[in-house]
Amino acid sequence: MKMMESIVLVGPKYGGNVGAVARCAKNFGLSDLVLAGSAPLGDEARKAAMHAQDVLAHARIVGGLEEALGGMDYVVGTTSVRTISKGHYIRAAITPKELAHRLNGVDGRIALLFGREDYGLSDEELERCDVVCRIPTAQGCPVMNLSHAAAIILYELHGLSETGIEMASVHEKDLMYERVGALLRAIKYHKHKTDNTLLMIKRLVGRAVLTEGEYHTLMGLLSRILSSVR
Amino acid sequence: MKMMESIVLVGPKYGGNVGAVARCAKNFGLSDLVLAGSAPLGDEARKAAMHAQDVLAHARIVGGLEEALGGMDYVVGTTSVRTISKGHYIRAAITPKELAHRLNGVDGRIALLFGREDYGLSDEELERCDVVCRIPTAQGCPVMNLSHAAAIILYELHGLSETGIEMASVHEKDLMYERVGALLRAIKYHKHKTDNTLLMIKRLVGRAVLTEGEYHTLMGLLSRILSSVR
Repeated sequence: MKMMESIVLVGPKYGGNVGAVARCAKNFGLSDLVLAGSAPLGDEARKAAMHAQDVLAHARIVGGLEEALGGMDYVVGTTSVRTISKGHYIRAAITPKELAHRLNGVDGRIALLFGREDYGLSDEELERCDVVCRIPTAQGCPVMNLSHAAAIILYELHGLSETGIEMASVHEKDLMYERVGALLRAIKYHKHKTDNTLLMIKRLVGRAVLTEGEYHTLMGLLSRILSSVR
Repeated sequence: MKMMESIVLVGPKYGGNVGAVARCAKNFGLSDLVLAGSAPLGDEARKAAMHAQDVLAHARIVGGLEEALGGMDYVVGTTSVRTISKGHYIRAAITPKELAHRLNGVDGRIALLFGREDYGLSDEELERCDVVCRIPTAQGCPVMNLSHAAAIILYELHGLSETGIEMASVHEKDLMYERVGALLRAIKYHKHKTDNTLLMIKRLVGRAVLTEGEYHTLMGLLSRILSSVR
């Protein structure tokens, strides 16, 4: 399997932005554009897409994020909000350069999520992500145009080396985090800390980019721990 | 003196692009926007600029490129055309990453030139540049939207270290290339090769990022060579 990136626009409002993202996708050799929850694909979109009419015409329209993530291995969320609180892991972010560095040499299907023009991705949507990426901007003016943010991230990911190690899939990681959750319950971990700790583990594993082999090893390990605890 | 970047749009046609570039400029902490040869600054521009109305309002409108380069130290051109011929130096380009690497730790005023939406910068305009930058894109779809190209280059240059070595100015380098030209004439260099060789030297010096000190040393050296030749 080769590295393959899909762009998932969650609830985009303006066709001009969708078209501009399609154009950028084509500039960087991507063709899978997914629209989740809305699909402004009219004249504005076609006009902005320029030579990327094919990307627009083949855009996949899905009802929501879960459907968009079907068959994906690794989910990258984007945010323009810098996390202030140390204990708050939802928007704890890496830079596009770090993202490119981490994804270099792994294979699999990567979903790049971009949120709504006005309020981005929700906390619930960011929880579904393996990693959150933020573009370092000037103080006081962090919110970039949707298609510009996409351009920068696609630019960074363009030309990564492709023959590498297979990643664990989104589905497998969901199973693993369920098992971690079961372990936390089994050891009677502080209930009020559970969600945040789980998210911290998710972000840690996300940054590390879990491979298929590591997934199986960790699942075995978790099972052993769980059976010793019970 | 600190590093300061100016964005120079040469002959932009669409206000939407000018506004989008202003927004990107603000995202990355730049405020000097120069419009050379045209100034589409109407409703479309204001709409796309979002929170960067101040950048737009203070945009400097100049008649042409030479006026825009007044007081600048280093001129970066942009192109989406890949040079095929080895002997053709006009569009011999470095990547945005290489540009950032080269400009890290030098101080001075940098002009970032972006050409027209349809045919970019002319050969004559690119000859005025110290260095030409091209964003690596997918084969067959190299032409990016103007503001997306600007976003990627500003992103790469954002956060360079600033306390460094002073660069030689555009004016000083012009004087130096004049002296190199005089030397080529003095040694009766092949007339048909002169322009291309001068351009090659310009690109080489441009990639090296000439410092103020080096400029003075080279000027002295050139004078000595010239007086020995005559």
